[in-house]
Amino acid sequence: MTANKPWLAELASFLKPDQLSTSQAVLEQHSKGESFDKGVLPDVVVFPESSQDVQKIVKFAYEHAIPITPVAVNSSLEGHTVPLKAGISLDMMRMNRVLQFQPEDLLIVVQPAITYPEVNDYTRRNGLFFPIDPGAHASIGGMVSTNASGTMAVRYGVTSDYVMALEVVTPTGELIRTGSQARKSSSGYNLKRLFCGAEGTLGIITEVSLKLVGLPESASAARVPFKTMKASIEFVTSLIQAGLPIARCELVDAYSIKATNAYNGTNYPAETTIFLEFHGNEQGVIADARLAKELAHDHGALAFESSTDPKERQILWQARHTVYYACLALNPGKSSISTDVTVPISKLPEAVETSLEAYRKAGFEASIVGHVGDGNFHLLIFYDADDKAGMERLELAGHEMIVQALSLGGTCTGEHGVGIRKLKYMKEEHGLSLDYMKLIKKAFDPKGIMNPGKKLPA
Amino acid sequence: MTANKPWLAELASFLKPDQLSTSQAVLEQHSKGESFDKGVLPDVVVFPESSQDVQKIVKFAYEHAIPITPVAVNSSLEGHTVPLKAGISLDMMRMNRVLQFQPEDLLIVVQPAITYPEVNDYTRRNGLFFPIDPGAHASIGGMVSTNASGTMAVRYGVTSDYVMALEVVTPTGELIRTGSQARKSSSGYNLKRLFCGAEGTLGIITEVSLKLVGLPESASAARVPFKTMKASIEFVTSLIQAGLPIARCELVDAYSIKATNAYNGTNYPAETTIFLEFHGNEQGVIADARLAKELAHDHGALAFESSTDPKERQILWQARHTVYYACLALNPGKSSISTDVTVPISKLPEAVETSLEAYRKAGFEASIVGHVGDGNFHLLIFYDADDKAGMERLELAGHEMIVQALSLGGTCTGEHGVGIRKLKYMKEEHGLSLDYMKLIKKAFDPKGIMNPGKKLPA
Repeated sequence: MTANKPWLAELASFLKPDQLSTSQAVLEQHSKGESFDKGVLPDVVVFPESSQDVQKIVKFAYEHAIPITPVAVNSSLEGHTVPLKAGISLDMMRMNRVLQFQPEDLLIVVQPAITYPEVNDYTRRNGLFFPIDPGAHASIGGMVSTNASGTMAVRYGVTSDYVMALEVVTPTGELIRTGSQARKSSSGYNLKRLFCGAEGTLGIITEVSLKLVGLPESASAARVPFKTMKASIEFVTSLIQAGLPIARCELVDAYSIKATNAYNGTNYPAETTIFLEFHGNEQGVIADARLAKELAHDHGALAFESSTDPKERQILWQARHTVYYACLALNPGKSSISTDVTVPISKLPEAVETSLEAYRKAGFEASIVGHVGDGNFHLLIFYDADDKAGMERLELAGHEMIVQALSLGGTCTGEHGVGIRKLKYMKEEHGLSLDYMKLIKKAFDPKGIMNPGKKLPA
Repeated sequence: MTANKPWLAELASFLKPDQLSTSQAVLEQHSKGESFDKGVLPDVVVFPESSQDVQKIVKFAYEHAIPITPVAVNSSLEGHTVPLKAGISLDMMRMNRVLQFQPEDLLIVVQPAITYPEVNDYTRRNGLFFPIDPGAHASIGGMVSTNASGTMAVRYGVTSDYVMALEVVTPTGELIRTGSQARKSSSGYNLKRLFCGAEGTLGIITEVSLKLVGLPESASAARVPFKTMKASIEFVTSLIQAGLPIARCELVDAYSIKATNAYNGTNYPAETTIFLEFHGNEQGVIADARLAKELAHDHGALAFESSTDPKERQILWQARHTVYYACLALNPGKSSISTDVTVPISKLPEAVETSLEAYRKAGFEASIVGHVGDGNFHLLIFYDADDKAGMERLELAGHEMIVQALSLGGTCTGEHGVGIRKLKYMKEEHGLSLDYMKLIKKAFDPKGIMNPGKKLPA
């Protein structure tokens, strides 16, 4: 292989021997992700250990016009980390340290491969946390690159809301810093936000300064089943309009509740259920739950169980936390895919019903989990990867779901990112503004080496 | 004048007669702003009435390479709206309507010249509000363009956090839309955030979709004087670290309290005073205030007065609300300037003390108002515009303040923007990343016609 790629020897010359690998097993491991997208084998996997390593590697790749596909934890669901061109797979996993912790500034500076649970383990003893929880033990670099969110976005926002500063190696190999330790700024263009969600196509993130928030004194949780999905969503809208500071607000559909009943040995009403959490002081969260209960009653809730006790809260939320495993247990041996769209809040019932119908017609039973305070929902679908015709019907149902989300004024992805699989919706979603995105890509990455084939269509 | 500018006749040919003016009074009015920056007279002031008008005007300007300086309410403090090149002053004031209000989606779509109090008058009856309050009855377009904030940023964030979508006429005259009605998205590059804070240098904002939030059920307010500024800021940091959801948190220094005592006939301790507000349900805000009181006591507060009664809250906050007029009354006949920097929270005492000292040495008494939960503070300074030597010393003190903020890891502007006056700090603050900002400007505005001479140094 090195015979075909004479640049490999030169690359090896400025790295330690254990910082690059061309072993078949390592190349194969770096050719795929969580999605079913098929990529190509990279020529080499490189393991940088510092920002300076990254800069050297990118400078080299820029000179030789070698494609770079960055990866860390590899929990992406949309093929972001799957190389579409050979070249360098840039495995960031060794850059996973805390560089600086300034509790007095509510700030932590980390390398990109640290995961969000690791950040929270580090900051919790100071009463602080980073409130974004996309699941899958995602890395901070990956979360910044997809602008990930999770169950608490309705209260705490999305990853980019917590990025105070970034260090980035640009596609031409320059090491730049954007943002500062100031919690707000009107200085310069907001490059920081441009790198957030750019999916590694504008540069490699080598350092992230994250804003932290204080851990709430208390929390209350509630589980609220409804006869119809529409009623459940109207209930949530009423909570938001009442100014209730919901910390978490998750919808789990009847099919999934049934699955979790079987899985956990519970006997909850198999109906669309809203899971709530409020954060604040004890008096406040009890009052929040009380008002939520009144509103639930007004919207025809079948029940309203709530608690501020940590153990009871855990039990109240158990069904939500076990949806994936419960549904998996109903579909042994199958693969799963989780799609992600977001629509205006009031359009959620319509979007969910139509999407479910599209999958039903295609022969798939879908489980729905919705971050319903944001209008964001996921369909979890189990499929047989060997059933070609089924796979085609699955793709088509997903297409219908996305086209509908766009026609309702929504977005084709609320938190998973574009990767490879949603490229074809970029023109429809962004129209003429896509041309301006391409102007930026062209200006930053003139040779097109940075995560090629992702985020923006050619 | 039309003789020198043959393009004026062509411009007039596609507008109604009352949509453009070359009267000396109107040109002069459009040559200056709130800052003491001196600009040039525009050749013409144009009043678009629709997005299509703006597009026609910008297309025309692009073809003829005519500079455009946009303006609406003209409350900018940094010279954003002052033409540095003649050409077109684009007065957006006629585009001030609500286009669409979707309370069920917590969303309002407005034209750029509507002011934020007007938006709140419109949405309040539905229990919703837009929580950014920079003062000065600023227009939404201006607030988006400077990424304005105000007293509630510590809880509710900054203007760009509320921008769901924008319609923009780009410098080449294309009408683009960026963002959607979805409350979060990981689709495409974040162009929306790039236009936020771009100060009109990347295009003209013609429509803004704003996220709204529910009006809180209750609020509690408190006034807390401290013997030292350091103690007052440490108190605030302890509130944030305790996870208290502060809605407002303002510092007013001893000099200003003395001024407000004289102005309002009050007799408050003339010491650094923190003004607090909590939003939530009644039980919660009372508990928040109780915990704040304990922490205030721990940090040596001289008193802690609080209330949830609307009228009493008004009285508690009176000193904060009257700082400007109270200080003005002490400085009759003088002009005033308000500067704005932001530093990491823990650096605030040092930054404030050093800045005050710099102004004192220059012979100026400054009043300090700080959005202290953000590390953002303003020095309000009164000066005699005819005193040339004094003006020079004033400039120098401002320079020292900014250089220090940057050296502490902060930003040269937290909310006022760069405009003209802070151009010279862009290189120091942004380093190499400034080159990437310039790449974007060049790609979007190849002829450099859009608000030339602002935001980025040449």
